[in-house]
Amino acid sequence: MLLDRINAVNDIKKIDPEDYPALAEEIRQFLIGHISKTGGHLGSNLGTVELTMALHLSFQLPEDKIIWDVGHQSYTHKLLTGRKDQFDNLRKFGGMSGFPKRKESNCDSFDTGHSSTSISAGLGLVKARDIQGQKNSVISVIGDGSLTGGMAYEALNNAAKLETNFIIVLNDNNMSISENVGGISKYLNNIRTANAYLDIKEGVYNTLKDIPRGDRIVEGIRKAKSGFKQLVVPGMFFEDMGITYLGPVDGHNIPAMLRMFQEAKRVRNTVIVHVITQKGKGFEPAERHPARFHGAEPFDTETGIPLNPRTTANYTDIFSTVMCKLGARNEKVVAITAAMPDGTGLRRFRNMYPDRFFDVGIAEEHAVTFAAGLAVGGLKPVVAIYSSFLQRAYDQIIHDVCIQNLPVVFAVDRAGIVGSDGETHQGIFDLSYLSSIPNMHVMAPKNKWELSDMMKYALSLNAPVAIRYPRGEAYAGLKEFRAPIESFHAEAIYLEKDVCLLAVGSMVKTAEEVRRLIREAGYGCSLINARFVKPIDEKAVEYAKKHHGITAAMEENVASGGYGERVREYFDTLPGEGELLNFAIPDEYVEHGNVDLLKKEIGIDAESIAGAILARLKERE
Amino acid sequence: MLLDRINAVNDIKKIDPEDYPALAEEIRQFLIGHISKTGGHLGSNLGTVELTMALHLSFQLPEDKIIWDVGHQSYTHKLLTGRKDQFDNLRKFGGMSGFPKRKESNCDSFDTGHSSTSISAGLGLVKARDIQGQKNSVISVIGDGSLTGGMAYEALNNAAKLETNFIIVLNDNNMSISENVGGISKYLNNIRTANAYLDIKEGVYNTLKDIPRGDRIVEGIRKAKSGFKQLVVPGMFFEDMGITYLGPVDGHNIPAMLRMFQEAKRVRNTVIVHVITQKGKGFEPAERHPARFHGAEPFDTETGIPLNPRTTANYTDIFSTVMCKLGARNEKVVAITAAMPDGTGLRRFRNMYPDRFFDVGIAEEHAVTFAAGLAVGGLKPVVAIYSSFLQRAYDQIIHDVCIQNLPVVFAVDRAGIVGSDGETHQGIFDLSYLSSIPNMHVMAPKNKWELSDMMKYALSLNAPVAIRYPRGEAYAGLKEFRAPIESFHAEAIYLEKDVCLLAVGSMVKTAEEVRRLIREAGYGCSLINARFVKPIDEKAVEYAKKHHGITAAMEENVASGGYGERVREYFDTLPGEGELLNFAIPDEYVEHGNVDLLKKEIGIDAESIAGAILARLKERE
Repeated sequence: MLLDRINAVNDIKKIDPEDYPALAEEIRQFLIGHISKTGGHLGSNLGTVELTMALHLSFQLPEDKIIWDVGHQSYTHKLLTGRKDQFDNLRKFGGMSGFPKRKESNCDSFDTGHSSTSISAGLGLVKARDIQGQKNSVISVIGDGSLTGGMAYEALNNAAKLETNFIIVLNDNNMSISENVGGISKYLNNIRTANAYLDIKEGVYNTLKDIPRGDRIVEGIRKAKSGFKQLVVPGMFFEDMGITYLGPVDGHNIPAMLRMFQEAKRVRNTVIVHVITQKGKGFEPAERHPARFHGAEPFDTETGIPLNPRTTANYTDIFSTVMCKLGARNEKVVAITAAMPDGTGLRRFRNMYPDRFFDVGIAEEHAVTFAAGLAVGGLKPVVAIYSSFLQRAYDQIIHDVCIQNLPVVFAVDRAGIVGSDGETHQGIFDLSYLSSIPNMHVMAPKNKWELSDMMKYALSLNAPVAIRYPRGEAYAGLKEFRAPIESFHAEAIYLEKDVCLLAVGSMVKTAEEVRRLIREAGYGCSLINARFVKPIDEKAVEYAKKHHGITAAMEENVASGGYGERVREYFDTLPGEGELLNFAIPDEYVEHGNVDLLKKEIGIDAESIAGAILARLKERE
Repeated sequence: MLLDRINAVNDIKKIDPEDYPALAEEIRQFLIGHISKTGGHLGSNLGTVELTMALHLSFQLPEDKIIWDVGHQSYTHKLLTGRKDQFDNLRKFGGMSGFPKRKESNCDSFDTGHSSTSISAGLGLVKARDIQGQKNSVISVIGDGSLTGGMAYEALNNAAKLETNFIIVLNDNNMSISENVGGISKYLNNIRTANAYLDIKEGVYNTLKDIPRGDRIVEGIRKAKSGFKQLVVPGMFFEDMGITYLGPVDGHNIPAMLRMFQEAKRVRNTVIVHVITQKGKGFEPAERHPARFHGAEPFDTETGIPLNPRTTANYTDIFSTVMCKLGARNEKVVAITAAMPDGTGLRRFRNMYPDRFFDVGIAEEHAVTFAAGLAVGGLKPVVAIYSSFLQRAYDQIIHDVCIQNLPVVFAVDRAGIVGSDGETHQGIFDLSYLSSIPNMHVMAPKNKWELSDMMKYALSLNAPVAIRYPRGEAYAGLKEFRAPIESFHAEAIYLEKDVCLLAVGSMVKTAEEVRRLIREAGYGCSLINARFVKPIDEKAVEYAKKHHGITAAMEENVASGGYGERVREYFDTLPGEGELLNFAIPDEYVEHGNVDLLKKEIGIDAESIAGAILARLKERE
């Protein structure tokens, strides 16, 4: 096995060039073998095997800095930098992250996770290098999908001014997670298919040279500098901005990339190397279904079929279904996703109502202001974005939606602990950042039926509403509790004495278990489903304090600015001896791993909460 | 006066075309006359007089929708839509806003304030129009400066797919608030100066036609569609994305613009009309000093000299001075602004350390991740961005700076109530959104000296720190209180009994007045300067509760997620009978007007706070 000889960074440089294809094949089999067991990002990693090899062969790590945009395509990089043995624990608690982490290796030069950050970060590393008189290379590797994110373009605009070397590798697979959208994709396609066009230009030149006065014409064209460039260079827009463009080059042809990277190193400004890759390359099921193998659960390596196919609906499925119903009921309902038609469950809505569905690309800021425009125009937009990605649009929610008090519904998926994707993807801030905004309403469903009910309610409210729900299986318990949603009332589930649990969304299920433990210890325990995080239901808080010694607010969100803090503001103004305990995520980033393990780790599992409440009950006696 | 005949929307259509230049001149004099008295945005409005007239002549308001990006250039639009009489109360409390407001006129089709939103909003209005079978035009007017903001590009990427009419007017004055930066500016410059180049191409074509086989060559070029376009069309990048490009056209030539807009209306997809204007046009001081006349205080209409020149330093000046000192002391200190070298006070740093200064354009997201890259590279970046604009980079602070716990210092200017710019610009969320983020430290100085001290401290901390300070005059009181900044301690200023004021930043000055009123009423009153909003000084909170019946937390920020809520979380865990009152901005947007008036209006002025505390003291007796 060639891979046996790859145990530390730069070991790849000892491999005979003739063996590169064989090594690439071994790496592919390694990745398929491991990801089929652990789950993880497959397609993007299979697409960048040769590209990563070529980068490691062309540059000297850790001195040279490679920044992986998004970072889920960094598996081969991890493999080539001494982390081969850690793939068994990929994305597990305490194991190797699925993204680059500086704390994991000095070959990981910048932590990534969200899209479109790599050019900004790379430019920072370049400037730091130049100011300190260092000489290393900096290489940002960015997908064409990430180029639909605006901050990549902000960065390009700045990189264009640079007068020292900065290499941007455009990893162009003509895909975001799903198919790519928009003008930039079209532009890149034009370049991709520019060979025929280059041939024609070549022909024009040759013809001109052969004819009388032809030389003079060519000369005239050359004099007009930009005209000249437009005649001979694809990627003209980059060139016109001041960025050198090289390519396109086949991203599965290592010798061709090695030549291109040598050329790129010599450029004395920012240079884009346009590399064409195929997502899922070398694994036929992933080549055919790139979206399905973007982030994969464990699968059969022969067929690609999931080993443990889901048998229960997750919240995304519920959202998907209710959106189709709402779309049928009201022609004004439109849906927006930022490059996640599958992840958000909106593909079915798209299939049913293609004219009322918008995939805007990886462009959360635009998505939200676009929705504001749709709402001003008289429609009922539903914006479905993951909690951690919606952070990108905080200003647009404040400035474009809520100042004008527009009826935009935010379907905030992946809220709370998401698990194996880790720190960058945990949806643990949304209750805070959304609740700080005037005119916004914030809700969370306790179970699958309530998500449907809340969506219907939200569209009727004629004001901004966010509904947040977690990743994974939709809770199917508490089916018998389905009182109509009323503005802005919590839902009483069980009313007893001693302890009152005020639980938000996913924490209602946890609260049932907390309640069981408290009752087992001989105390009574009420359970109230908050439903509304903003505004809080003051009557429910009054009831809790009046009838219970201890009230406990429970949320899967950071404490600061969350539900519990706002409950306490009101709780404290009320008479009585009752006290409030707040259970929320502590002020720290939460790593990757199994969701239940992580909740235990940060103290928001049922045992921890029940333990804390029982201890306090004992103290009060 | 022609202006006498302009009293309602579309009145301009009754003006004889021969009188357009005279009307433009009257509008300019009207604007100069009024803004010289009230203050306001001058340069951008003088630059768009003819453009606005041409838009109103070409389109039918309010059916057609004009969206003004940023919106501070909408004064002529307001003048032409029946709001002439309201200019005396421009930007005053209860008076006309300096920005488009839907609640002010049905001719204002979308509220703006922050940069780069207009294409997203316009595209929303276009889609809403098409889905509902309406026929109106939608016109987004965006400056070239706003094109440095990434979300404009996200929107262009989506607009490129459109198959119905959407008009984007690119108001190109080659300026942001200050001089423009970056590749896109260079690209537009290439277009601006493309006439000579067009002539050359024209020459090539004519020459080709005259020579043997020339026709065949021209034909060959035409066949290669993109090649053909690159030969004859400026704005090729837009065209290659799928957007029609028209222009450039002189933005002070009304007939030329009218012809161009007629042409634009006929296009069956998105069309960019590239209009060249001059900022400050027609007022010589503003033409010469565009940055100074961007947002102007009252001035002499002859000389342009301010009527009430500032005699005292504001916080921006203090920041400016300390940055120069810190730059001299430590070569690793670098400074970043998002198109605000003057507004943030960084121009002096730039002049002294040009290689360590970065103006990234209107690109807050990039600014923050770029700073993260600089920090990973070993430098000490200071990012100076206004509070309301930093909202744009919430995710970048969470994801790129704080996960990696990088030593980036955020100088958050214009924090709190900013006054005449109103809702979109109030800096009232930063304590909430910054405090929600793990690893972040949040501070606020009580006076000018403390801002300097905090900057020095922040650079020594080796972790993310935000220092927020308000617009306007730097407080020069309490000079004698200058205990060294210590991690993470509040500063005791006066220690008495009865009442303890825990005041954040600008509220320390207010607290002095509150204290005076409370003492006049016969009570003792401690005053503690919080210094740290995150982490809170628990010892100070303990002291407050232990020794006072009433503790009052005071902040110029929304309550939700602010200082007071976090203080209460800890306060409640402490023994004792003391109670906490929180004074913060209520859960609503704050309009434009005089800062002191606004504070009174929302109940965070000294009288309101003292009144509430005294009332509670009486109740407790």
